[in-house]
Amino acid sequence: MSARAGSTRREHIVRYSDGAWSRPTDTVATEEPLEIRLEVAAGGVSASQSLSITMRTPGHDFELATGFLFTEGILRSKDDLAEITYCLDGKAGDDDQTYNVVTVSLRPWVQIDLSRLARNFYTSSSCGICSKASLEAVRVQAPQPPNGDGLRVAPELLCTLPERLAAGQPLFRSTGGIHAAWLCDAAGNPLAGREDVGRHNATDKLVGAEFLAGRTPLTDRMLVLSGRASFELLQKAAVAGIPMVVAVGAPSTLAVDLAQEMGMTLVGFTKASGFNVYSGAERIVGAK
Amino acid sequence: MSARAGSTRREHIVRYSDGAWSRPTDTVATEEPLEIRLEVAAGGVSASQSLSITMRTPGHDFELATGFLFTEGILRSKDDLAEITYCLDGKAGDDDQTYNVVTVSLRPWVQIDLSRLARNFYTSSSCGICSKASLEAVRVQAPQPPNGDGLRVAPELLCTLPERLAAGQPLFRSTGGIHAAWLCDAAGNPLAGREDVGRHNATDKLVGAEFLAGRTPLTDRMLVLSGRASFELLQKAAVAGIPMVVAVGAPSTLAVDLAQEMGMTLVGFTKASGFNVYSGAERIVGAK
Repeated sequence: MSARAGSTRREHIVRYSDGAWSRPTDTVATEEPLEIRLEVAAGGVSASQSLSITMRTPGHDFELATGFLFTEGILRSKDDLAEITYCLDGKAGDDDQTYNVVTVSLRPWVQIDLSRLARNFYTSSSCGICSKASLEAVRVQAPQPPNGDGLRVAPELLCTLPERLAAGQPLFRSTGGIHAAWLCDAAGNPLAGREDVGRHNATDKLVGAEFLAGRTPLTDRMLVLSGRASFELLQKAAVAGIPMVVAVGAPSTLAVDLAQEMGMTLVGFTKASGFNVYSGAERIVGAK
Repeated sequence: MSARAGSTRREHIVRYSDGAWSRPTDTVATEEPLEIRLEVAAGGVSASQSLSITMRTPGHDFELATGFLFTEGILRSKDDLAEITYCLDGKAGDDDQTYNVVTVSLRPWVQIDLSRLARNFYTSSSCGICSKASLEAVRVQAPQPPNGDGLRVAPELLCTLPERLAAGQPLFRSTGGIHAAWLCDAAGNPLAGREDVGRHNATDKLVGAEFLAGRTPLTDRMLVLSGRASFELLQKAAVAGIPMVVAVGAPSTLAVDLAQEMGMTLVGFTKASGFNVYSGAERIVGAK
C-alpha cells in the first residue's frame, strides 16, 4: 500500500449501458481509515489514547480531527491545542507510511479524564439511553443555544442554494459518491465547503477549519448539507453555534427534536421549487 | 419520553412550494440510539460490556444486534447465542422505558476477550492503520472468500432491481430519508429486505435475520443496496458469505479493494439503463 492516498482514484471498470459493454476508467472517491489519538499531560505524565477511527476521504485531516474533538466537547478553545501531527513512526522512505493516524496534543492545563473517554461518547444513564439522554448530552456541550438573532433568510434564496453550491463540489462531480457540507452567510454566500465519503466528516472538516481560524461560535451562519440531516450533524452544528441547518435531503426525528430543543432552524428537502421547515421558521422571511 | 418509538413519526411542518406557504404534516424517519451490550461468562463470572451505540430506526433490534455481532466476527454460530433481551430495569409502567438497550448473552463456551473488545474493532498495527490493515482484519473474520460459483446474473436483470425493490420500501416512500438493503436470489427475487436511517444498520438487520434463521453463509445471493457501497457494507457481505453486492449509488476505493481481494462482484450506479462493474464481472452474463 503506497504512501499518501489522494481524494479520488482512477479505476478500470466494466460498464453496461443501453445493452452495450465497454471498459472505460471511472473515478472513485477514496475511503481510508483515520485514527484520531489524543495526547494529554496529567500529573506530569503524558499519555496517548485512541479516541476514534473513522472512514474518511483523505485531505484536511487536521481539520477533521479538530472538528471532531471540538464538536464532541473535548476542545473548548484554540488555545487548548498544543500540536496536531501525523504519527510518523515508520522508517524514512517506508512505503507503509500511510498518514492515517493523527495525534492531537493538548496543553497541560486541559483536564481530560482518559478513562471517561475510553467509554462511549453518548451518555447512557442506566438503561435509559434514549432521545432524552442524547439531547441532554448535547446540552452539556452547547450550554448556550446558537445565536441566530440577526439571521433572516429569504425563501427564494434557500431555493437557490443546492444548485449554487453543487458547482463547488468537484469530488462529487467526478465520483458521484461523496457528501458536501457548506458554511454560508445570511446572503447565501459560501464561505467554506468540504467534501467527504462521510457526512459527519465533511461537517467536522468544515467546523474544524473555522475553529482553527478562531471564528467559532458561528453566529448567524447556515450549515448547508448535500444529503440528509441526522442527529449527529445537528449536534455538531449546535456545538459550533450554527443556528440554521439547510439540508437537501430528509431530516430524522432526533434531528428535529434537537433543532426544536436548541431553537435552531432546520430546513429539509431543499430544492429549486421549495423546501420543508421542521423547526425555527421565524428565521425565514414571510413564513406563515 | 414515551415508551417504544415507531419507525416513523408525524411532524407539523411549514412548507414553501412554488412561492406559496402551507402548514401540512410530514412523516419523518425515526432515529434513536441503540446500545448493544454483550454478556459473557468467564471463569464462572458473568460480565456485561457495552460494545456499540448506533443511531438506528427502531424495529428488528434483535436482528440488528445479531447481525452486528456476527459481521464483527464475535458470533460464529447461532448456537453461540444464549439469549437476546431488551434491558428492562425500569419500574413496571415506567414511562422512561425506551427499549433502546439490547443485551446479547453468549453461551459459556464462547471465548471472548472483553478487554480486547473494549478497544476499537479495526485492527491498528502500530501506526500502520491503512487499507491493508483494514483488509487484513476482514480476512481474519471471513477466512473463506464468499462462494458464488453458482451465481450468474443477466445484465438485464440487474437493471430491473432498483425499480423492482423500490416498491418494497414503505419507509422510504413515506419519509424520503431512509436506506434499504435487500437479499435477492440469482433470479432477482427479493428474499428479505430491511430499512434504516443507517445503511450499516439496514444490512446488519438483514444479515442478522438470516443468521438467526440458520441460513448463513449466504452462498449465491446478492446484497442490493439503495445507496452507496462503502467498505463497511462490503465487509459485512464478505463475512456473511454474500458473493455479490449491487448498489444504486457509488462505491468507495476501499469497497473496490475489498471486493477484488475477496473475489466478490461489486456493481455500482445501477439503474434501468445500465451499471458499472468494479470487481468480479465474470458473474454477469455476457460481460466483456
